[in-house]
Amino acid sequence: MSNITIVGAGMMGSALAFPARENGHRVRLTGTHLDREIIAESKRTGKHPKFDKPFPAGVEYFYFEELAEALEGADMVICGVNSFGVDWFMQEVLPHIPDTTPVLSVTKGLVAYDDGTLISYPEYWERSIAPRKMNLNAVGGPCTSYELVAHDQTIVTFCGRDMQTLETLRGLMRTDYYHIHLSTEVMGVESAVALKNAYALGVALAVGLNEKVNGVGCTPHYNSQAAMFYQSVKEIRKLLTYLTGNDRQIDSAAGDMYVTIFGGRTRLIGTLLGRGYGIDEALAELKGVTLESLVIIGRINKAVKKLAQDGKLDAAEFPLLMHMDAIIEGKATSEEIPWERFTN
Amino acid sequence: MSNITIVGAGMMGSALAFPARENGHRVRLTGTHLDREIIAESKRTGKHPKFDKPFPAGVEYFYFEELAEALEGADMVICGVNSFGVDWFMQEVLPHIPDTTPVLSVTKGLVAYDDGTLISYPEYWERSIAPRKMNLNAVGGPCTSYELVAHDQTIVTFCGRDMQTLETLRGLMRTDYYHIHLSTEVMGVESAVALKNAYALGVALAVGLNEKVNGVGCTPHYNSQAAMFYQSVKEIRKLLTYLTGNDRQIDSAAGDMYVTIFGGRTRLIGTLLGRGYGIDEALAELKGVTLESLVIIGRINKAVKKLAQDGKLDAAEFPLLMHMDAIIEGKATSEEIPWERFTN
Repeated sequence: MSNITIVGAGMMGSALAFPARENGHRVRLTGTHLDREIIAESKRTGKHPKFDKPFPAGVEYFYFEELAEALEGADMVICGVNSFGVDWFMQEVLPHIPDTTPVLSVTKGLVAYDDGTLISYPEYWERSIAPRKMNLNAVGGPCTSYELVAHDQTIVTFCGRDMQTLETLRGLMRTDYYHIHLSTEVMGVESAVALKNAYALGVALAVGLNEKVNGVGCTPHYNSQAAMFYQSVKEIRKLLTYLTGNDRQIDSAAGDMYVTIFGGRTRLIGTLLGRGYGIDEALAELKGVTLESLVIIGRINKAVKKLAQDGKLDAAEFPLLMHMDAIIEGKATSEEIPWERFTN
Repeated sequence: MSNITIVGAGMMGSALAFPARENGHRVRLTGTHLDREIIAESKRTGKHPKFDKPFPAGVEYFYFEELAEALEGADMVICGVNSFGVDWFMQEVLPHIPDTTPVLSVTKGLVAYDDGTLISYPEYWERSIAPRKMNLNAVGGPCTSYELVAHDQTIVTFCGRDMQTLETLRGLMRTDYYHIHLSTEVMGVESAVALKNAYALGVALAVGLNEKVNGVGCTPHYNSQAAMFYQSVKEIRKLLTYLTGNDRQIDSAAGDMYVTIFGGRTRLIGTLLGRGYGIDEALAELKGVTLESLVIIGRINKAVKKLAQDGKLDAAEFPLLMHMDAIIEGKATSEEIPWERFTN
């Protein structure tokens, strides 16, 4: 039995309590300051408010003020915050974790610098906490929290610098339904995670555009979604190759994009924009929902433009990215999608 | 105005009459000996029995006995037969087409030789009709006939040896909804087409397996489909690289697999097998339906086994292909899918 502490009681962090606890480990699920209600309800009912199924018996729940107690003797810490909580986690949680304790982050995204450099969150943390050195790892690959909780067959990737650490983490978390690739290509895995989140919006645009033509609730059409999927894989491969020197993580990106198209918020906003909603209308309709995909599109688009200016990339090779950004900026519509340019 | 003759009045061949005729060309749609009813109905009503929408005004219809008349002065011939008609088309139609008239084939598949060699249909024809030389081209990429008829945005790839011919064919067929990539990588494009047809069955297995667990008609789950998509892209890339020396057509294969998962027969048989039907039960349920995906899985699996024997490929790198073949052979079930092996 090992001690696994999860910090951040959002859906993905909380879902990882299932394989962790089912493997017999001590699991301490700790809410952030935003998770007070979730922790209160979990303590009271043994169930996360967003899940249909109770947590496995024995999971322990902690408020953020109890972080020190929750971290005591931890063999592994899971970071369950989303991209909007990355700095918070770095400032409020990392200082309390010993250097040698492995951290596994579920946070999706990339950090963009003004010069067009994009880096992963583990690298962002590494740079920010230097000269301190920690054991920082991350999870990529297609996984929705609901279905992990339901024990659906799921395959993800754990990435980090040290293969031995990754083997250990896999040993702690692997079950007969939660299967884990290992990779030391942190930037490749994390880029795949971020890019699929951006490009899943493109496929959702086609869903919405089809509804605009044939009516909401029409039989789904797939040619235009598939054309978007095709173009997305093409652009993602080019970006992966630029960012990491190879496109090996395209398998993971494609699988991950597939699941993102069908679940959740990126599909919602993309479909509304595809139907012809303006960005403000669409955001109003989804009030209160965090939209990491919009942030990542903006960041990548800005980076690509800067890199193109500096002659490092050809912006014309990313017509879908550019058009998605233009839609989000209110400067273009889904009806103007440059389909013909996708054949260049 | 050019003269475009389509031979084979199945759904895909017939669907291409729409962009061809809408572009103002003379279009002669010619049935095979199996298409007599389709031609009769089209002559009578101006509509293909499987489409909701009539053909554009002016499409002409011919029975197979009228082939010579239908081919007279053709600037381009579209081969609309499926993989079961490839030899028939070669023997009955190719001899009547002049060497310099471009042929564009919609047929999906690969031909397997006993030594493990796989080749495309255009190459199969080239080898078979040698020393005669013809201008043979093919279409790949995600496109369902219904949606092409509905004028949905669609992107495909025309492939052939000669870029100038391809430019000409694109000029004839391109519309504001039918967009066309061009590629001289015939084996790459055609392998992508065939492989996606095989691997789409894997994703459909996950659909059926989920229905088995949660009941037919349950809310779709996507983690396991995405895991299959991931593994499929991984295995397809390896096969593309072996077959063509590169994996450039993975973009097209991924988009094409996406559309195949949602439309038609491969999904039907895969879902039934996923639910636990034996192959005989599943085939009985789909009586009369042509199942090119089963044929291609068998061919590729046999080729991979032979190539592995000869030390040219490692069979362990294709666990999904092997398992799909075992299911089709009645030697394994969807419950035994080797998920954990997919993480190797």
